[in-house]
Amino acid sequence: MPALAALIEDLVAANRILAGLNVLDGFGHVSVRHPDHADRYLLSRSVAPELVTRDDIMTFDLNSLAQDGDTRTPYLERFIHGEIYARRPDVRSVVHSHAPAVVPFAASSVTLRPIYHMSSFLRTGAPVFEMRAHFGMTDMLVRNNDQGAALASSLADGPVVLMRGHGFCTVGDSIPVAVFRAFYTQTNADLQQRAIALGGSVTYLDDAEAVQAEETNRRVVMRPWELWKAKYYPRPDA
Amino acid sequence: MPALAALIEDLVAANRILAGLNVLDGFGHVSVRHPDHADRYLLSRSVAPELVTRDDIMTFDLNSLAQDGDTRTPYLERFIHGEIYARRPDVRSVVHSHAPAVVPFAASSVTLRPIYHMSSFLRTGAPVFEMRAHFGMTDMLVRNNDQGAALASSLADGPVVLMRGHGFCTVGDSIPVAVFRAFYTQTNADLQQRAIALGGSVTYLDDAEAVQAEETNRRVVMRPWELWKAKYYPRPDA
Amino acid sequence: MPALAALIEDLVAANRILAGLNVLDGFGHVSVRHPDHADRYLLSRSVAPELVTRDDIMTFDLNSLAQDGDTRTPYLERFIHGEIYARRPDVRSVVHSHAPAVVPFAASSVTLRPIYHMSSFLRTGAPVFEMRAHFGMTDMLVRNNDQGAALASSLADGPVVLMRGHGFCTVGDSIPVAVFRAFYTQTNADLQQRAIALGGSVTYLDDAEAVQAEETNRRVVMRPWELWKAKYYPRPDA
Amino acid sequence: MPALAALIEDLVAANRILAGLNVLDGFGHVSVRHPDHADRYLLSRSVAPELVTRDDIMTFDLNSLAQDGDTRTPYLERFIHGEIYARRPDVRSVVHSHAPAVVPFAASSVTLRPIYHMSSFLRTGAPVFEMRAHFGMTDMLVRNNDQGAALASSLADGPVVLMRGHGFCTVGDSIPVAVFRAFYTQTNADLQQRAIALGGSVTYLDDAEAVQAEETNRRVVMRPWELWKAKYYPRPDA
Repeated sequence: MPALAALIEDLVAANRILAGLNVLDGFGHVSVRHPDHADRYLLSRSVAPELVTRDDIMTFDLNSLAQDGDTRTPYLERFIHGEIYARRPDVRSVVHSHAPAVVPFAASSVTLRPIYHMSSFLRTGAPVFEMRAHFGMTDMLVRNNDQGAALASSLADGPVVLMRGHGFCTVGDSIPVAVFRAFYTQTNADLQQRAIALGGSVTYLDDAEAVQAEETNRRVVMRPWELWKAKYYPRPDA
Repeated sequence: MPALAALIEDLVAANRILAGLNVLDGFGHVSVRHPDHADRYLLSRSVAPELVTRDDIMTFDLNSLAQDGDTRTPYLERFIHGEIYARRPDVRSVVHSHAPAVVPFAASSVTLRPIYHMSSFLRTGAPVFEMRAHFGMTDMLVRNNDQGAALASSLADGPVVLMRGHGFCTVGDSIPVAVFRAFYTQTNADLQQRAIALGGSVTYLDDAEAVQAEETNRRVVMRPWELWKAKYYPRPDA
Repeated sequence: MPALAALIEDLVAANRILAGLNVLDGFGHVSVRHPDHADRYLLSRSVAPELVTRDDIMTFDLNSLAQDGDTRTPYLERFIHGEIYARRPDVRSVVHSHAPAVVPFAASSVTLRPIYHMSSFLRTGAPVFEMRAHFGMTDMLVRNNDQGAALASSLADGPVVLMRGHGFCTVGDSIPVAVFRAFYTQTNADLQQRAIALGGSVTYLDDAEAVQAEETNRRVVMRPWELWKAKYYPRPDA
Repeated sequence: MPALAALIEDLVAANRILAGLNVLDGFGHVSVRHPDHADRYLLSRSVAPELVTRDDIMTFDLNSLAQDGDTRTPYLERFIHGEIYARRPDVRSVVHSHAPAVVPFAASSVTLRPIYHMSSFLRTGAPVFEMRAHFGMTDMLVRNNDQGAALASSLADGPVVLMRGHGFCTVGDSIPVAVFRAFYTQTNADLQQRAIALGGSVTYLDDAEAVQAEETNRRVVMRPWELWKAKYYPRPDA
């Protein structure tokens, strides 16, 4: 299978997996940078991730304009993807989600921090993007390139950014890495909240521990990916 | 398919969807205003929503009297629907639920407020209907027109009303909108509780943000509806 | 179908339903008083409720001795059932469970109280049976008639009793009523905990509200029962 | 079926069961001591537990070196198993997990204690292994024999050890016992957190109660095991 076709297959799998893991519901999306054109990315047309098929995938440039005369309805927030790819050459995949476990941290003064090695990419804490600080009163969506650029700037060089009153994004240098980080951002949020609710003191990973654990995790990222594909996308669409 | 048949099909779908989303269990119900007679509404006979089929749908007038000599057992609380339709010409669908995530807010002094854009319809907070203030000691059910009218009065012009010691109602100008609001009332309740449990300060949507987000949401309401129909009502009954 | 066969069918259904609702897991049990012999009761041999079939049902007298020379291994805690039937002529069915949502209340100084009408049978709060107060240090199981009698005495004339460090029991004048109460004891525990976690004040049902709501609930108990049977025991074993 | 083949079958079942119970996800593992060679143990190659089949099982000596020239990729943390078997002749099975309910206790100053009889093996509280105290900054994994020995030393003669910023291990003198303890460690963590969140005082099992309850539980451990096998491994692979 040529590289592009294989990547599209993985992108469809990522949609189904993130829906299966409850990271995405009727909303949210996942994209991948075009394998042959670094200034383009692939993203589904506007449809619930669980229903995405190969034929739904559209191509966008980094201004998030649809290519090839494709006139199907795109996601309103595609600018998240375009601006992150523009600012971050290292990033090859982006996930945007409203996962219930994470939104509370996006609304709270408490910082999301790594409670165990699986979420070591959170390291010294996830930044929170505050739309209001940049654009005043909005509908909270990232619906143009300026807003996307501001979000990408909050993400900076990190792997995750929370969005106040909205959700979060994770990035990675491959689809499995971005998906892994989305899942473990969600899991860490749930675990951290439980730990806080115990009422005692909570020990988070030390920064040096997180750096080393993250290096290790990068080498085992395919193990859960293979499991998730087997569970949530067992029979690739013909 | 004529308008009435299509609407009944959507009403059956709404029952299955709300059961699938755990908004309804053995109890609760969803109705739709009659498409041709604004002074009538459609609601299942007394049966668990997950089991509702096309043949269970009954027609009621706005006094919640069964029409066409239908003598099947109706829901005890059909008056919720009749009185809301009577007071609110803009409403075309009503959901009544005991969803576990929401009941705590119906019993608490803490107001349910929008923690993210998806539940922007909550805006400045959901009102709580206190049966006791109007009718003293009751069995908590809305079982006549006076009680339905008092509830409708608490709902006022809003999209949602909580019911102390009981549950909540959402309304919309279509079945998908009422269902969307029921689901995101439930989700917001869960998220708000998690955010409060973190112990820090919580930032809710500003009123101006909520107004704009609600306008946007109204335009994407069919995306989750199509997903939910595909998941929970894949094969309409023949 | 003769009364006894129909009742055994319902008892098997109750086992499957309570497992499906996560009220029972590998442990716990549900019994019914013999329809023709008020001094006997029917209860499965020692097996996980989800696996119970018609052929597993044994008959016991009120001393919890197996009848008809049945030598199969019975549940260690069958004395719960025998002693409750002996003390409470009004009871026709007993559920014993370790449901996760309820155990915290059995270990806490906070009383389980009705947060909504569905659990109105909790009325002024569920009593907690403290084995230690009667029998000192034990393995926490109710494994003889004396212990069963002490538990039945804590239950007194109520519908539910919690057991410290162990679980709870519900009773009813029919299998559907005992199952309904087990499910809504579990649901109320979950809801009450969420309400407390909100940090505000919590309004429970007034005693007079609970009395009236309980009367109403008794009349609708078959609606969830029919749903649960359809979901968890769709094809009675041949 | 010869003893070894039967044990391998149980080991595969344990992998599927622990995945089904959400004790294991893409990570974690379960092993068994070799039935004929006390200085060897059986453990899957590096693959998600839910996907493990008979053919994935490898044999290791107590230094965690693969036997029989097996060059497949082993789990990085196999040293957990080797060092526990080396130190604890009574142990015949080891589970290592990152179960979400348990990790908060591994990061908190609050001790995991038995809230009911099912988790009586926790007795006076689960110890927490602090990698940092022994090895300074690491990637948190137990990736050599020294680290495994330190962990085994924290476990001491107990049935369970938590691992700060990581997860936990349970052991038993059979696969069903180790699995039972893993499941009820998870359940107890969830229940204890709920009990603490109620805000009142919490009564844990007295040590003498726990000793007696543990003795009883040892005799009923096959009941949930048979249920779990029927649910999560209904058709052993041919």
